[in-house]
Amino acid sequence: MKVVMLLSGGIDSATLAYYLKLDWQVYALTVDYGQKHVKELQAAVNVAKAAGIAYKVLDLRVLGELLVSSLTTTAPIPEGHYTAVSQKSTVVPNRNAILLNIAAGYALSIGADAVAYAAHANDRTIYPDCRLEFVTALQGSLRFGTDTDLQLLAPFINVTKASIIKLGLQLKVPYELTWSCYNGRAKACGRCGTCVERLEAFELNQAEDPIEYEVEV
Amino acid sequence: MKVVMLLSGGIDSATLAYYLKLDWQVYALTVDYGQKHVKELQAAVNVAKAAGIAYKVLDLRVLGELLVSSLTTTAPIPEGHYTAVSQKSTVVPNRNAILLNIAAGYALSIGADAVAYAAHANDRTIYPDCRLEFVTALQGSLRFGTDTDLQLLAPFINVTKASIIKLGLQLKVPYELTWSCYNGRAKACGRCGTCVERLEAFELNQAEDPIEYEVEV
Repeated sequence: MKVVMLLSGGIDSATLAYYLKLDWQVYALTVDYGQKHVKELQAAVNVAKAAGIAYKVLDLRVLGELLVSSLTTTAPIPEGHYTAVSQKSTVVPNRNAILLNIAAGYALSIGADAVAYAAHANDRTIYPDCRLEFVTALQGSLRFGTDTDLQLLAPFINVTKASIIKLGLQLKVPYELTWSCYNGRAKACGRCGTCVERLEAFELNQAEDPIEYEVEV
Repeated sequence: MKVVMLLSGGIDSATLAYYLKLDWQVYALTVDYGQKHVKELQAAVNVAKAAGIAYKVLDLRVLGELLVSSLTTTAPIPEGHYTAVSQKSTVVPNRNAILLNIAAGYALSIGADAVAYAAHANDRTIYPDCRLEFVTALQGSLRFGTDTDLQLLAPFINVTKASIIKLGLQLKVPYELTWSCYNGRAKACGRCGTCVERLEAFELNQAEDPIEYEVEV
């Protein structure tokens, strides 16, 4: 059975790749939709290679012309812990629906049975497209829109990032290859919302984050 | 109130543009996803200019690498009247969902209230993403995925192509600017499914199709 999954190069989708490959033939799809930097694209490729799964990088930077967010423009990235207000500017409108529907089209083209993404419980307060209601609705849209039994998998939808890392440590996910920071400098900044959340999740596992940070962590 | 609509350059979306502009500020979005020819893209631009609405052409030809269909490959276009079997190869998997979700992201970026497309009753036997169940499901996906009241409009969903043309003739839609033929030659072929359906719909209105055909019609 084949599954197409969205691979961003971060902790969550890297863990998803290792989790899915226990049971599925995994096709990773990484989409460049005009994120600020290429470090996470490179991380995605490195993770896919390490996992030994098929992968494609799709250049959709042209979408950046249409969709407005601080991730795709030159607006500054908000610092500090995630909050609905501080991270609002990082919401690319309708992003996951766009990417998952493209993944679904790709899945049908290669005869895959499912699409998957790594939405998780920490994201759901901020990002509506990381909530179960969205997953359920999108599953309906895929079912009716394609007249197939294509499944939408979101196995981490009610799981915290700390629990994802707990699973990933068991699965020996090479977290040193992943990239989460919203800034694209040589080392992770350690201050943006995603760095803060990542560090906290490793700490909750009493584990060390193997990547390098600009600040003492 | 603003609406973003998918404009292909064919009869249906041209009529939709003229219908919507009675009440809305219309932003047309034309997507080049690797269709066989540019004639329909040019038709879309010509219709938008004639209607005096805003328009954008988005180059997503890169999607052709992922999505397989006779519209985006060099496979021959099936001839004769539309049937589920003959037209199956013209289904780009999950196309409308991809395009409508992109349109939705664009709509949210410009503060629009709705997205619209011209799915109609003739298409529903063949294309699952032209059915009311899909529209309903996608509306749910947009609602939950964006946490907004963005509306999905499909005013022709239960209307035949002949009725669309009846409306369009009243609204003085410049059908001479539209293009429907799946082949991209100088004149419409008159033999492919979409030509046959178009000619039939004009005939049902006892009206003359103003475009030129390769065959006697």
